[in-house]
Amino acid sequence: MAVQTVATSGTSTVDLGPAAALSCRECGHRVPLGPVFACEECFGPLEIAYDFSAYDTEELRKRIEDGPANIWRYAPLLPVPADVADKPNINPGWTKLVKADNLARELGVTGGLYVKDDSGNPTHSFKDRVVAQALEAARAFGFTTLSCSSTGNLAGAVGAAAARAGLRSCVFIPHDLEQGKVVMAAVYGGELVGIEGNYDDVNRFCSELIGDPAGEGWGFVNVNLRPYYAEGSKTLAYEICEQLGWRLPDQIVVPIASGSQLTKIDKGLRELIELGLVEDRPYKIFGAQAEGCSPVSTAYKAGHDVVRPQKPNTIAKSLAIGNPADGPYVLDIARRTGGAVEDVTDEQVVAAIKLLARTEGIFAETAGGVTVGVTQKLIESGALDPAKTTVVLNTGDGLKTLDAVAGTGLTATIRPNLDSFREAGLA
Amino acid sequence: MAVQTVATSGTSTVDLGPAAALSCRECGHRVPLGPVFACEECFGPLEIAYDFSAYDTEELRKRIEDGPANIWRYAPLLPVPADVADKPNINPGWTKLVKADNLARELGVTGGLYVKDDSGNPTHSFKDRVVAQALEAARAFGFTTLSCSSTGNLAGAVGAAAARAGLRSCVFIPHDLEQGKVVMAAVYGGELVGIEGNYDDVNRFCSELIGDPAGEGWGFVNVNLRPYYAEGSKTLAYEICEQLGWRLPDQIVVPIASGSQLTKIDKGLRELIELGLVEDRPYKIFGAQAEGCSPVSTAYKAGHDVVRPQKPNTIAKSLAIGNPADGPYVLDIARRTGGAVEDVTDEQVVAAIKLLARTEGIFAETAGGVTVGVTQKLIESGALDPAKTTVVLNTGDGLKTLDAVAGTGLTATIRPNLDSFREAGLA
Repeated sequence: MAVQTVATSGTSTVDLGPAAALSCRECGHRVPLGPVFACEECFGPLEIAYDFSAYDTEELRKRIEDGPANIWRYAPLLPVPADVADKPNINPGWTKLVKADNLARELGVTGGLYVKDDSGNPTHSFKDRVVAQALEAARAFGFTTLSCSSTGNLAGAVGAAAARAGLRSCVFIPHDLEQGKVVMAAVYGGELVGIEGNYDDVNRFCSELIGDPAGEGWGFVNVNLRPYYAEGSKTLAYEICEQLGWRLPDQIVVPIASGSQLTKIDKGLRELIELGLVEDRPYKIFGAQAEGCSPVSTAYKAGHDVVRPQKPNTIAKSLAIGNPADGPYVLDIARRTGGAVEDVTDEQVVAAIKLLARTEGIFAETAGGVTVGVTQKLIESGALDPAKTTVVLNTGDGLKTLDAVAGTGLTATIRPNLDSFREAGLA
Repeated sequence: MAVQTVATSGTSTVDLGPAAALSCRECGHRVPLGPVFACEECFGPLEIAYDFSAYDTEELRKRIEDGPANIWRYAPLLPVPADVADKPNINPGWTKLVKADNLARELGVTGGLYVKDDSGNPTHSFKDRVVAQALEAARAFGFTTLSCSSTGNLAGAVGAAAARAGLRSCVFIPHDLEQGKVVMAAVYGGELVGIEGNYDDVNRFCSELIGDPAGEGWGFVNVNLRPYYAEGSKTLAYEICEQLGWRLPDQIVVPIASGSQLTKIDKGLRELIELGLVEDRPYKIFGAQAEGCSPVSTAYKAGHDVVRPQKPNTIAKSLAIGNPADGPYVLDIARRTGGAVEDVTDEQVVAAIKLLARTEGIFAETAGGVTVGVTQKLIESGALDPAKTTVVLNTGDGLKTLDAVAGTGLTATIRPNLDSFREAGLA
């Protein structure tokens, strides 16, 4: 691990609003805010420690409600400067929380079923939320290049955010990615570099670059800016509660890739309780994986605390992380809150994408098929209570994973006349 | 033309809010609200006549500002019942008005340049706005099937809206459409019928169906529901002005397909003036076409009042209407407001898509390339004043027209090591 990635003690000098320091998730050691992600004491992951002590609950609530219709309404709770909304940013968030009554009927949910639809973000995935945070950290640390390794959604989010902010972007991808994905990432005009190797090779190279003088001024959103980046997922929790009328959902179903999103949603919910913005009552968090990449689900079912890596083989590519960094934390949260972790087959993913589209008019990415499919399975198994308020996340857009439903097609072909129409039984 | 398509005199009995009657655009003849689109007197197009007389300006403004973050905030100005926001609908609108400072610098605009980005709608095009209106009209008239002819965006918007509303949908398309477009339309689970013939054949068949008993209970959003459907485009004008702080833009650049959107944006702006919601001062409306389908632009440049049909041949397929129904009205509005109609080549469309993505992180459909390209051309010719506040519409999403930028790709390919990185000049 390169030297810049480990924090050293001292005082924070950058202005990132309420963010006070970085704190080790394992040992609690605190270091100043900086572009680092691993604890100098124990190499545990660093996360943001906040100072929320000055907030009055009702003043804060009003400030949020009067804020912009994007994640910056929560600026007082994020590692961003107070004037963040005035800077060029793609301003993700405040996506629809859809009351999914038709889907509820199909699944037998009576307590209220909602889909948090993050396909409404600027580049149509939840990644815009996390990249927007990383961008502010990059600006605070004086970085001039925004970078990442990616095989899909993240590349577009980084490219778009850097373009708006006027920063250079340089995204690293495996050189043999499908042409469609290359186009989606390349259109924003940043540098898009193909690495001769697989995704692991790309990641290894990025870590090497961060430790080298050549990487000076480079902010890798999900590496040296990871503690800031990850906080973006908290905004999903904030929005869900505010959109429910400042109320915790009883149950929430979250997809698992690295597991970071699920842990930060839990963090966000706990913050809202601590701040008095929602009533403190139990909630359950459920994790959703595809069977073809289900290391956390497998560990959960086996009663393990550690996650054994898997080689991914699923159509849910945006969730295909075989060795999820936050896997153990996810297990802990699922068990602590009374939730569960479950997985579904690729066939069930496809069926769930179609079910959501047919019932609610929402065309989800494969990751959305995973959460809807897992919700259905958890209801059938009794792990999820259909009489409770339930929120299911859709984190991406079906237009990006068209191949998954490529079998869908015409229901009939007719000649352009009424006789042919009647013969086809369409009248 | 089938008999049901022509209105007869009488009294409106349906509740569509402030909509009082249908009025002929040509002769002013009024008929009750109904699923009709052509005047019984002169066969001119019918549009909605409203009764706004009860509104107090500041009460109305507050009611709008307190309304939902979608088009239903403008329910008092639309042909929908007052409780529309409580009904299952995909709730489009309130999309971002992006202050495009980077693009402004590239184009030399100093008076403020904004992109109204309708790719943020539920199915990622402005069609959600118009279909949402048609859906309410369909409900009011007791229709049970929502239908349309389409080659793209409209099919998805109808499929999604009908799914959410729990109505049957049946969309007619040419049978040999590209598989990707078929998938996007089919995923919502409605009936998707391929017609053996071209788009004109599809349209002719739909008109035949409306006039036949087999078409009873069918609402064709852009045929027998057209007067209601078309009003959805007014919401673009409302949102732009409200997002500018209840101010008219000086200049607005709108794409032209049938021309309906441009005429309704003009109608929306005039309504805001009449209602006192914005100050009455001059604005200019500019129309944008692709050279390969530029009947209105050609007529404008030739000084004609009539539009001669063209056979479309352009990558901007969502604008490829060779015989635009509202073409003469567009010519009138462009001339009356001091605007213009211009066109750009397919190469300029592609360049403009890339320019917008590179400067603002917005990946537009080909139609967005047309408006940005035309804006650039109008600035260069002096027709558009760079010192004035200018709004450019992006009506769709680049993910739906990936082929247009298929040439975009990797900027470099390297081996996974720092030497290769340096050799490529990326440091």
